[in-house]
Order: sequence, then structure tokens, then C-alpha cells
Amino acid sequence: MGAAVEAQREQIGLKDLDEAGVERLIESITQQVMLRLDGGANGNHGRSPGSDPDRVHPMIAAGADRVASTLGIAPPEGRLAGLIDHTLLKPEASHDEIAQLCSEARKYGFASVCVNPSNVRLCAQLLKGSDVAICTVVGFPLGATPTDVKVFEAQQAIREGATEIDMVINVGAVKSREYELVRQDIASVATACHAANSILKVILEAALLTDEEKVIACQLAKVAGADFVKTSTGFGPGGATAEDVALMRRVVGPDIGVKAAGGIRTTEDARRMIAAGASRIGASASVKIVGGAEAKERSYGR
Amino acid sequence: MGAAVEAQREQIGLKDLDEAGVERLIESITQQVMLRLDGGANGNHGRSPGSDPDRVHPMIAAGADRVASTLGIAPPEGRLAGLIDHTLLKPEASHDEIAQLCSEARKYGFASVCVNPSNVRLCAQLLKGSDVAICTVVGFPLGATPTDVKVFEAQQAIREGATEIDMVINVGAVKSREYELVRQDIASVATACHAANSILKVILEAALLTDEEKVIACQLAKVAGADFVKTSTGFGPGGATAEDVALMRRVVGPDIGVKAAGGIRTTEDARRMIAAGASRIGASASVKIVGGAEAKERSYGR
Repeated sequence: MGAAVEAQREQIGLKDLDEAGVERLIESITQQVMLRLDGGANGNHGRSPGSDPDRVHPMIAAGADRVASTLGIAPPEGRLAGLIDHTLLKPEASHDEIAQLCSEARKYGFASVCVNPSNVRLCAQLLKGSDVAICTVVGFPLGATPTDVKVFEAQQAIREGATEIDMVINVGAVKSREYELVRQDIASVATACHAANSILKVILEAALLTDEEKVIACQLAKVAGADFVKTSTGFGPGGATAEDVALMRRVVGPDIGVKAAGGIRTTEDARRMIAAGASRIGASASVKIVGGAEAKERSYGR
Repeated sequence: MGAAVEAQREQIGLKDLDEAGVERLIESITQQVMLRLDGGANGNHGRSPGSDPDRVHPMIAAGADRVASTLGIAPPEGRLAGLIDHTLLKPEASHDEIAQLCSEARKYGFASVCVNPSNVRLCAQLLKGSDVAICTVVGFPLGATPTDVKVFEAQQAIREGATEIDMVINVGAVKSREYELVRQDIASVATACHAANSILKVILEAALLTDEEKVIACQLAKVAGADFVKTSTGFGPGGATAEDVALMRRVVGPDIGVKAAGGIRTTEDARRMIAAGASRIGASASVKIVGGAEAKERSYGR
């Protein structure tokens, strides 16, 4: 009982405030975070040259769908596939299962396959000549590896064929309020990605964070040059929620992406996330998700 | 119902055979594995010079307790602490929690603290001058990073103060029967560890494997020069079982260690694992485990 009340108290945050209250709170948290970073709010923490939105934006928003959905506009029916990272991250995935993932991604036109780093090389072979990007994960799923290791892991994955890196933040450092460490961790991987024409998505593992920490983590990802913030690993205690997506979109603004991942199993789940502000969806049930959309289109349109 | 029957059928393995049958099956699996490795059974797959048991054994078996328990003999009451890796691997662990872990490890005389790589440096500072080793995890918990990344991660952790590396095998490669890849993955990290006077424990994530795959993984770890095999990450679908520990001990023999980890919460759990052949225990409830032992000793002995 005590623990439940405690948990509920932890949950009391942005949701209990009105619009203006949320804005004020986000602004106040942002100011506090900036002051805690070395160099203060006007220090050297703008987006690095490599992450100039003008340079990155065409890359992350290839195609009108992604631009539209970055602004919270749902894409037309049937275009959903182009927003989905078709995901298979279970450690026991065999080569046959990875091959099936790649074949489905080609067939349905998913944005990418999202696989563990040890499968990047195989996917690069299998997806040669296709438009499907290779997305992989770094410091995954715990985020608790040192920055040098995350950078090395990202660079190696990019060498092997990945162009999208989903890294997990150092959650323990967020909890310890070591914001400069968190920012540097992200910025180092962002620099490595951008130097190799790849994009960086920063996974918050929102289910482990308070609302205040979610806001802080989004701000840190933004100043560190992330191209996307992402809700969840799919291995944590909770997945994507529309509330978290809306909050994250609100904090990062329209210029960087929001990826919803973790527990998205139906077309309706996916559309709810996009309506809340997601510009990318991570899912392993992607075929079912787009199959649902196509079936719906057929029955409605004919 | 179909799935349950399927699962049950999957479980039918070594447990349903008599003693001689188990021995024959292990021998047959071993032969098959050796033949699949490049170079065959008599190739260059003995333990590397760095993993010479004569050199490593005094290190992994520092103290009579560990020697005894390597042979399946339970240590005397109260000496349990020296067999325990006091573990805190949750990603949200704050610096304060890591500091408490180190302080408890000093107080109770645990073998090591087992932490995520990003906390190794802090533990090295906090445990200076103590006998508590620093154990960390590599390719954790999915095991699905390329070999180069695992080696880099291990080397960096050792530079920062770790002397024990718990790496996760490439589970997907086991499932795909790519045994030479699995062996090389382990051997590369073993070489890096031994070159720096550190030991390597190889995590099978037994809950993801069939009994046959557990035998294969143990054989591969042994020929690759591992100092321990370890049951589980604690993040998978199941933890340590006495059956798995007994099977693993049987396959690796008396000369290398077996670490039971995942879901070990009581003194009885720990003693059951040791009786089954475990020479090291990984637990986050370590204080409770040894507290229980001490309390029992008091009530029995006085």
C-alpha cells in the first residue's frame, strides 16, 4: 500500500498541470539543466556542426511522410510502412529469422530493419540495392557502458553498414543528476554518427524516468545533437505511451524526430503514437501493423 | 495447449536419460561440436597459453573455499560471502547505490562487486585497498555485439579497474549452429582478459537454450579458454536452476568454475546451487543471503 502511494506520488507531475503550467515547468527545468551543464546556458552546447538541422533534416525526413509526421500530421493510409523500423532484437534471433526480417522489410517498404549490432553485417548483405536502411542499437538495452565503448560500437556498426544508431542514455547518470556526463555521452556518439553520415536516436527508457527526468533527458539529447529521441528499448519495465510521446515532442520541438517503440502491436497503437507526435515507430509486429492498415484500406476503399 | 506440449517436448532432453545415457549424449554432442570447429577435434582449440589452468586456477580459486566448492563441496557456514559476486546491474542504479554496494562488499567480504561497465571506475575508487574484486559485464545482457566490440569493452573495463569479466555468448550464433563464431567470440575476449591478468566468465543465458545447446555452449567456452561458465544474466526469461548448474559442472569438469546467477535470493537458494556444483554465486540479495547464514549459525551454534 505504502509503495503504491509512493509510486502514485512519483507519477504526479506534468499530467496534473494545465497547459500554461506545463510550459512553465518545462522552461524552468530547461533553465536548471542548462545551468548545470559546464559553460551554462550560453556555452558551447548548441548542436554540433555535424548535426546542423539543415544538413540532417533532409536525411531524417526523407520523403514527405516523415516531414508531415514530424509535425504531428498522420501520413496517408498505406504510407505507414515508411515510418516503421522493422525490429528484431531478441538475443536468440537466428540467421534465418534475420533473413526473414530483411525480406519483409523489402516487401513492405519499411524505413529500416532494427537489429542487434552482431547482425548488421548480415543485413547489409541481404539488403544491398534496396532502400531499406539498417538501424542498430548501442549500449543496449541498459545504456550503462562508458562513452568510449558506445562510440566504438557505433563506429563499428556504421562501418559494417548501419546508417541509423539507436543509443541508450546513461540512465544511472540521469538519476545521479550528472547532466554534463549524460550530454557528453550523447554528444560523443552524435559526433561519430554525423561524421559518417548516419543519424542518432537517443533512447530515454522513459519507464525508468520521472516526468521531470524525461524533460531533462530530452533537453540533453537536443543540445547534444541527437536527430531523434526515442521512448523505450522494449526490454525495460514499460514501452511507449502516447503521453510520453506528446511530452517528448513538446520538449524537442518540431525539428528533431520522436520515435515511439516498445509494445506497439496494432495499427491503432501506431496511429495513436503518430497522432501524439511520433515521426518513427519501432515495432516487431510491423507486418501485422501495416497488414491491418492495408486490409482496412481495401474494405473501406472498394 | 499446442504450445505447452511443444515446450514440454523441447524440455525432453538430458533429464529423461539415466546416468550412462547422459554421459553418452554429452560425449556425442562434444564430438559433433569439435568436428564443426575449424581444424576438428585435434585442432588449435586447446586452452590458450594465457588460460593455462595452472596459471589461472590460483587466481580463480583464491582461498580454500573456492577450491572446495569448485569440487562441489559446500564451504563451511559463514564463508559463503567469499563466493558471492555482490551484484547491482539495474540501469538506473545511482552513484549512491553503487557506493552502498561497495561498502557492503567491504563489510561482508564478498568476492567482488558486479556492476555495469560505466560504474567500474567509481568502484575502483571506492574499493581501493580492499580485497574485493571488481567484476563487470560485457556484451550484456543480449550478447549480440560483434567480437571486436566485446574485446574493446573488456579491455576498457580492465583498464578502469575490473579484474573479472562476465561476457554473454552470442546466443543467436548458437541457435544458428555457428559454433566456430561462438568459440572465436569467447576466445578473443579470453585472450584479452588473460593478457591483463583478469578472468573471464562466460554467460550462457541458459533459459534461452535447449539442454543440447547448454552442453555445446559449455564445451565451446571450455575450449575457448573461459575460466568460468555462468548460467544467466538475470535479465532473461529465467535464472539459475540447480539442474543447469549440475549439467554445466558435469560438462566443464572440475578445473573451471561454474557461476550460478539470476533469481538467487536466499541462503537456501545459494547452498542448493553450491551443492549442485557452483563455485561462485551472483546475487543482489547477497546481504540477506549471508545475513541468513549468520543468523542460522548463531541459532544453531550457541
